[in-house]
Amino acid sequence: MIALVVNGARPDALEAAQTAAQRLQGRRIEVTICVLDHVNHDEVASALGHLEAEVYVSLGGDGTFLRTARRAHEMDRPVLGVNFGRVGYLLNEISVPLDEVVAATLAGEVPLERRAGLEVRFEGHGSEFALNELSVEKTVPGHVVRVAASVDGELLLTYAADGLLLATPTGSTAYNLSAGGPVLAPHLDSFVLTPVAPHLVVDRSVVLGGDQHVDLEVVGERPVVLVLDGRTVATLEPGAQLSVRRHPRWLNVVSATERHMGRRLRESLRQGHE
Amino acid sequence: MIALVVNGARPDALEAAQTAAQRLQGRRIEVTICVLDHVNHDEVASALGHLEAEVYVSLGGDGTFLRTARRAHEMDRPVLGVNFGRVGYLLNEISVPLDEVVAATLAGEVPLERRAGLEVRFEGHGSEFALNELSVEKTVPGHVVRVAASVDGELLLTYAADGLLLATPTGSTAYNLSAGGPVLAPHLDSFVLTPVAPHLVVDRSVVLGGDQHVDLEVVGERPVVLVLDGRTVATLEPGAQLSVRRHPRWLNVVSATERHMGRRLRESLRQGHE
Amino acid sequence: MIALVVNGARPDALEAAQTAAQRLQGRRIEVTICVLDHVNHDEVASALGHLEAEVYVSLGGDGTFLRTARRAHEMDRPVLGVNFGRVGYLLNEISVPLDEVVAATLAGEVPLERRAGLEVRFEGHGSEFALNELSVEKTVPGHVVRVAASVDGELLLTYAADGLLLATPTGSTAYNLSAGGPVLAPHLDSFVLTPVAPHLVVDRSVVLGGDQHVDLEVVGERPVVLVLDGRTVATLEPGAQLSVRRHPRWLNVVSATERHMGRRLRESLRQGHE
Amino acid sequence: MIALVVNGARPDALEAAQTAAQRLQGRRIEVTICVLDHVNHDEVASALGHLEAEVYVSLGGDGTFLRTARRAHEMDRPVLGVNFGRVGYLLNEISVPLDEVVAATLAGEVPLERRAGLEVRFEGHGSEFALNELSVEKTVPGHVVRVAASVDGELLLTYAADGLLLATPTGSTAYNLSAGGPVLAPHLDSFVLTPVAPHLVVDRSVVLGGDQHVDLEVVGERPVVLVLDGRTVATLEPGAQLSVRRHPRWLNVVSATERHMGRRLRESLRQGHE
Repeated sequence: MIALVVNGARPDALEAAQTAAQRLQGRRIEVTICVLDHVNHDEVASALGHLEAEVYVSLGGDGTFLRTARRAHEMDRPVLGVNFGRVGYLLNEISVPLDEVVAATLAGEVPLERRAGLEVRFEGHGSEFALNELSVEKTVPGHVVRVAASVDGELLLTYAADGLLLATPTGSTAYNLSAGGPVLAPHLDSFVLTPVAPHLVVDRSVVLGGDQHVDLEVVGERPVVLVLDGRTVATLEPGAQLSVRRHPRWLNVVSATERHMGRRLRESLRQGHE
Repeated sequence: MIALVVNGARPDALEAAQTAAQRLQGRRIEVTICVLDHVNHDEVASALGHLEAEVYVSLGGDGTFLRTARRAHEMDRPVLGVNFGRVGYLLNEISVPLDEVVAATLAGEVPLERRAGLEVRFEGHGSEFALNELSVEKTVPGHVVRVAASVDGELLLTYAADGLLLATPTGSTAYNLSAGGPVLAPHLDSFVLTPVAPHLVVDRSVVLGGDQHVDLEVVGERPVVLVLDGRTVATLEPGAQLSVRRHPRWLNVVSATERHMGRRLRESLRQGHE
Repeated sequence: MIALVVNGARPDALEAAQTAAQRLQGRRIEVTICVLDHVNHDEVASALGHLEAEVYVSLGGDGTFLRTARRAHEMDRPVLGVNFGRVGYLLNEISVPLDEVVAATLAGEVPLERRAGLEVRFEGHGSEFALNELSVEKTVPGHVVRVAASVDGELLLTYAADGLLLATPTGSTAYNLSAGGPVLAPHLDSFVLTPVAPHLVVDRSVVLGGDQHVDLEVVGERPVVLVLDGRTVATLEPGAQLSVRRHPRWLNVVSATERHMGRRLRESLRQGHE
Repeated sequence: MIALVVNGARPDALEAAQTAAQRLQGRRIEVTICVLDHVNHDEVASALGHLEAEVYVSLGGDGTFLRTARRAHEMDRPVLGVNFGRVGYLLNEISVPLDEVVAATLAGEVPLERRAGLEVRFEGHGSEFALNELSVEKTVPGHVVRVAASVDGELLLTYAADGLLLATPTGSTAYNLSAGGPVLAPHLDSFVLTPVAPHLVVDRSVVLGGDQHVDLEVVGERPVVLVLDGRTVATLEPGAQLSVRRHPRWLNVVSATERHMGRRLRESLRQGHE
């Protein structure tokens, strides 16, 4: 079974999914199409959360890919991203028919790249997964969050900031880059701590190894929101603690086309000044 | 009439206000004490909004000062800040009795410094005043705001960012500094545009003159909040426009003690790493 | 008399100069052409330093313009920059014949923009002029310079850095921007202090008013070089002092075409990522 | 044999070395003292370059440590840094007599930390070692260097900048931090590429893995200087190429006292604002 997860707002993505589905069925490969829309959000989330497949294919932009990847990671299956969005570091511009790529992936003929994710634990929750980043953000405009960050049990710094984020190499070119953080080579077993608009404290990022863990504690008087890959997951009250480490299970990404870090970086930087 | 505006959470400020009030009455100078607390917020705001005085004295930190200054500016009267907070660029560490400073101010014997504020206009509102900064901020965690900034009617840049702020020289050492902006000498007739965590666009600040005006337009699909000096003032829907210029009426700040820009800057930077 | 100052390495600039000279002579306007090359550097500098003209026209890039502007400023005459280079904030892309622009300038029919420059004084020298920036830089690779910066006689900060620069609004988009400084609106009567790679100290810029003066003192054990608009002017020994203020004489720049700050900024930012 | 390498400008370091030497001889451990001074620089460098010892002990600041570590790395022996300088990330504040620490090190009772260095190769030279960083820097004030950086054979970015540096985790808190780069956890098998004052190009750092290699090519018209750990090593002409990777031999550092990353970071940041 192949799952095609499609951004419903992109007619070209929908059409590509239907074409690929027909051709895959012609190859006697079972297919499910799951269309993401903003109207039936909960229903869709539930459907996506029950999809069982051997390969998960995302047809859309970064948002579609992040949601598909989360399910693929949960099921420990590979994910293939086909780009129908704007910037897509992890996404492929595919020039051959999609069914060929999928068939080749099933046959083990396409290389997989492993990517590090984050495992986030906090009181009352099990383990959560983030492929790009975790961020804690302010809930009240005009007021900073106060968060103490510890590495391997030792206090690193207490931040008063608009937010604080922990990004993976995959996420290092997303929110982390906007916040002034460094780009991490995609294959690294590392993650990076970057504050957003820190008040009276060092604004440099700190790069940590996949063998290290970070604890965040809400030390201010106001709650913060916890955001994983752009999804608000919880509101954390003062005193709440988060425990973060590199997720023990890596995500396998189908590498259908070459992705040169340099070219991607230059392209996306140019987009900002058009 | 002298208005003493006090941070109710600071017993030392309250005591100082009461002592000063007694001694001012001994000098036959009328005094009103207005205590700011978080419980009766609306009631207090209303009281503060009707205070009529010749000199407004703030006893507290930056928050108390900003609220007092707003009323003083509205009435075109001088404001004197006495520091009972942490960092206070505009505040005085006063070593002589407060009533002496106030009496000298009434007698015109203490120098006044004029400070630039911002005048903000948007549909359905009259003119609003900000002493530190105006910021437009995201309403939904995990999503940027999209704001087009024009200077004197010409598009400068369209920002996708966590927020965008316009700070006065007085506010340049507050939120603007956290967001990476420059310090502006306090007396300048200038203001500065600084993005917070801008996505794929230049992150440098732009310094403008007091003779220029800035229009901000919400161009994304999500509303933004408008924050003036830390107070949320409005939610702006997509398409909304803000017009900002240096306020035609300057704020007069009583300069009871010398404030060296260099020493203040170094002190506050050190605080961040304690 | 019109002076045409040409970058000798640009055949298109040379040709344009010759065409313009012929046509200006046809209008009975006297012309001198001064060709800048790298071979006879001293000779050329001397010739440029004696050029007397009513209007100085630069045909080349930023380097040619800076040299021409310096002479025009010295003679208190307007300068017109015609762009044959890459990035040129102050330069014009001229679509009508150059002789028309020059004739119109002589007739007072083209607007002039005034631009602030810096006046630099140090022991053993008279006053020097800089249109873009002054920088003090390290002389020995691998070692910082130590420079104490005072504003209006009060110590601001002591920098240990690769360098320290003071830029005008015109220069704010040049070296200052590379070093992380803000863009200043071109007409401002301000200048900005920006450190390059400062060690263990705030890296934010400080924007000052045209009414303020800055003193720099070399406090380390190593000499520094003083660079004005890219020209090395002197080596300053430990203990040496520089005094800098906005130059009392403004530079008049012929504004032959409109220069939108926003468009120029976006264009030059895109160039960096090609 | 124990080598004590001492900063000759620090009388307290000299005295500590002599005391330790006496006490070590009392323990029948052979000792050589090598005093670094600025007068007989070549002679000292030659002596240091021939020192053969089982453990190399540095008594001084970062400069002394870097020179001692280079020899220790060459001989594949551990190095112990005793701090007599200002900031010392790798240095120990030792509270027990030094001879005890050395004897315990010889007995294998003190833990060693391994640190990544850089191996630099360029035409006409064998392999060079850097513990902190490699930098290529401009030779002429007022002019940028142009350097193309490739990662694993693929072009990343071409920089026009004051300089470009590759720093190890150990060096990430030195020049790299000044230039805006991130802090890397000390034990990581990574290094970071950071430009200094880049012109019209992204200023973010790029973090690479110990399995990657970087090629730098001088693409401008001017030579650059190559600096390793603060020492100027060569002038590189246009067209010259450098090949850099994590050095295959790690440096072993004696870890006599605990070094908390967070505390060290906060301490050194505070120093900058004193």
